[in-house]
Amino acid sequence: MLNKEIRLASRPAGMPTPDNFNIVDAEIPHLKDGEVLVRTLYISVDPYLRGRMREARSYVPPFAVGDVIVSGVVGEVVESRTPEFVPGDIVTGMLGWRLYNAAAVPELRKVDPRVASITTALGVLGMPGLTAYFGLLDIGKPKEGETVVVSGAAGAVGMTVCQIAKIKGCRAVGIAGSDEKNQYLTAELGVDAAVNYKSPELGRALKEACPKGVDVYFDNVGGEVSDAIWPLLNHGARIVICGQISLYNLDKPDVGPRAQPYLLVNSAMMEGFIITKYAAGFAEGVMSLAQWLVTGKLKYAETVVEGFENTPQAFIGLFSGENLGKQLVKVA
Amino acid sequence: MLNKEIRLASRPAGMPTPDNFNIVDAEIPHLKDGEVLVRTLYISVDPYLRGRMREARSYVPPFAVGDVIVSGVVGEVVESRTPEFVPGDIVTGMLGWRLYNAAAVPELRKVDPRVASITTALGVLGMPGLTAYFGLLDIGKPKEGETVVVSGAAGAVGMTVCQIAKIKGCRAVGIAGSDEKNQYLTAELGVDAAVNYKSPELGRALKEACPKGVDVYFDNVGGEVSDAIWPLLNHGARIVICGQISLYNLDKPDVGPRAQPYLLVNSAMMEGFIITKYAAGFAEGVMSLAQWLVTGKLKYAETVVEGFENTPQAFIGLFSGENLGKQLVKVA
Repeated sequence: MLNKEIRLASRPAGMPTPDNFNIVDAEIPHLKDGEVLVRTLYISVDPYLRGRMREARSYVPPFAVGDVIVSGVVGEVVESRTPEFVPGDIVTGMLGWRLYNAAAVPELRKVDPRVASITTALGVLGMPGLTAYFGLLDIGKPKEGETVVVSGAAGAVGMTVCQIAKIKGCRAVGIAGSDEKNQYLTAELGVDAAVNYKSPELGRALKEACPKGVDVYFDNVGGEVSDAIWPLLNHGARIVICGQISLYNLDKPDVGPRAQPYLLVNSAMMEGFIITKYAAGFAEGVMSLAQWLVTGKLKYAETVVEGFENTPQAFIGLFSGENLGKQLVKVA
Repeated sequence: MLNKEIRLASRPAGMPTPDNFNIVDAEIPHLKDGEVLVRTLYISVDPYLRGRMREARSYVPPFAVGDVIVSGVVGEVVESRTPEFVPGDIVTGMLGWRLYNAAAVPELRKVDPRVASITTALGVLGMPGLTAYFGLLDIGKPKEGETVVVSGAAGAVGMTVCQIAKIKGCRAVGIAGSDEKNQYLTAELGVDAAVNYKSPELGRALKEACPKGVDVYFDNVGGEVSDAIWPLLNHGARIVICGQISLYNLDKPDVGPRAQPYLLVNSAMMEGFIITKYAAGFAEGVMSLAQWLVTGKLKYAETVVEGFENTPQAFIGLFSGENLGKQLVKVA
């Protein structure tokens, strides 16, 4: 039984490349009391990891060069030195990009394969789903009849936001990067309108998609996509800053029209958040999401790349929008 | 008895000039039942009026060319056709830039000259004071020991914010445009540190003034002054967008580093507001402010220009920072 792990070989300059990662052989870890050995089944790759590859202050400390990358993983317990888990249990946690991880009990959460596909623990019933749920409901506070615009709408978070907006009786408008994605949003998910951000007339397209203006803007993308939203804000609009994927590979601070004058004239609010803020509510959030899932009100999509070695490439692909819904790597 | 009024002669292009205003003779208005005739004593000139001189959507409709400018006025009732007011009463309201205005009862509020100087109805006990009070306490939510930074700190709103921050046990840091103003803030008002925004090393000066970072930023100015704040934000910072005086005379949207990435990594919040939102709380707000005033915890400054004809010039002077505290015009 051989272990492998993926380390940060060097800090990306701009767009990450495969050279920024090392795939190396490693020992199977020896378990201490209270630990389990988890065989990786699926790895979640997430845009925010790019921030941790930078040597800069952020909401989580940066990876050091040589560190094993850590992200959401679903795996199977293959050995246990705790009564909490037995071999065969499916678990999820923030684990290393490894074939096998040792993990202590508090790092893991059991996944029930009877509720839904175990991959949903990394998507609609995991961090992305919870991010959509709390970001939209707690910060965006959508009211029936309002217009909710979502950038990065075809990603794991974005498509969940769009659907929760519909569940709450709002007009949902998605912004994504291809006509195929937008077709999926409107035809499969019931989004009211979808706009391609590559459209040469983004401002006009958004205006047509939002005839009553924008009450909530859930932003995963930032940059020029957001700039096009500001003139459409309604009085009392709420802007949820969840991600800024368009900026993660920039080496200099991003420059554009300042948003403050738009916030001022509209008495509007803009707030950044990190999902860990809502940890106390995760159980409630997962319950609501699961209920919508089993009753068919909430759908999800996954893009699955096969093979542990392809994890860096799956991560890099996020920045060119190769994924529809949750980007996963199937390891075993 | 002759009336005069000041009308918008043309829309300013960039910085307003005296040519944008007409001072013309007018009739003394005839009162209808329920109205009083108010002789103007003091006129308040306010930066936000610049927005109303522009033909653009904002939180109040624009003045039309030819309209009499309207702002806060303190005056004396000289004739009354309502039992609510008698000649000699001192009143305040949003009235025209005229020597005499006719006003209906709901437009006016009585001013008690025994509590404080009647000019405070246009300053620390009027809209600027209430703007400081609700903006800081309701949106900024300062907690004891936090650092509150205020731009436009030597203006009527800013200096009140600084002092309320001190009352709440915070470190108050003011940003103003001259060393004399900053001297006033620290020596007279007890502000902990004051920074001149014209300093060639604004970022470094702010960093030194805020050794524990910035928890609340109360912004009256916008532009590059705000840009220098973003790198200093603490986790959970609150940014109150009260005004953007540095931008009011720009003809094109202002461009600079986008704030969203800073909000994201710090889980920070930025909100614009208009004081009318808090109308239901005005009585409570004035009471608190008056109590701090009479107990010496809250001070104010006024810059008074004499002569009705000088009202446009007093207004224009706001944009080069000629005022310390509330800018008033003494009319009679």
